[in-house]
Amino acid sequence: MLNNQAPLDLVFQALADPTRRIMVERLSRGPAAVSELAKPLAMSLSAVMQHLQVLETSGLVRTEKVGRVRTCQIEPVALQTAEHWINERRSLWERRFDQLGDYLAAQDDDPDSK
Amino acid sequence: MLNNQAPLDLVFQALADPTRRIMVERLSRGPAAVSELAKPLAMSLSAVMQHLQVLETSGLVRTEKVGRVRTCQIEPVALQTAEHWINERRSLWERRFDQLGDYLAAQDDDPDSK
Repeated sequence: MLNNQAPLDLVFQALADPTRRIMVERLSRGPAAVSELAKPLAMSLSAVMQHLQVLETSGLVRTEKVGRVRTCQIEPVALQTAEHWINERRSLWERRFDQLGDYLAAQDDDPDSK
Repeated sequence: MLNNQAPLDLVFQALADPTRRIMVERLSRGPAAVSELAKPLAMSLSAVMQHLQVLETSGLVRTEKVGRVRTCQIEPVALQTAEHWINERRSLWERRFDQLGDYLAAQDDDPDSK
């Protein structure tokens, strides 16, 4: 079971850093060359490349080198996997609260409870 | 700006571990005592407490000690913050693809492009 969860480990780990979230945010708006991705970030190109490596390993970003330019783009499936996981937990939690609400409403209608 | 993002760092970091995700999953179904939370996990109670500490620090879980029993419950706001962040990025990405689709359809209709 833990093996199946490894991609989620990597995706959440990748998203746990503000610089990497800025990079994902930028790439959600469209592909970008590494140099463009690095421009708003106050760090060396080598540090940017390390963050990019984490994003690639997690499956959130794909890069491709054409000539001398490496272009990066988002891989939506990884982001969807993380979103789906959180969504499912929220549904569970909301369902439980709905049930609690129904129970309390039923108690309210029950003359024995008054 | 980075300070505002600290909670997201902690939430994604907390979710990057399969044991902690199992704990969040369990608590999405309702509150539980620490001993109950530990039952399906093949680890010492002290290891469970460490994971619980990470979840508490991230804001995903709240615990309360009444007498000798510590009860844990989910704090949905932290989960919603993470969900919202991913959601927004997906919307950006989908909007870009819609625009690309519109552009290609317009090119298709344009007799000059044939």
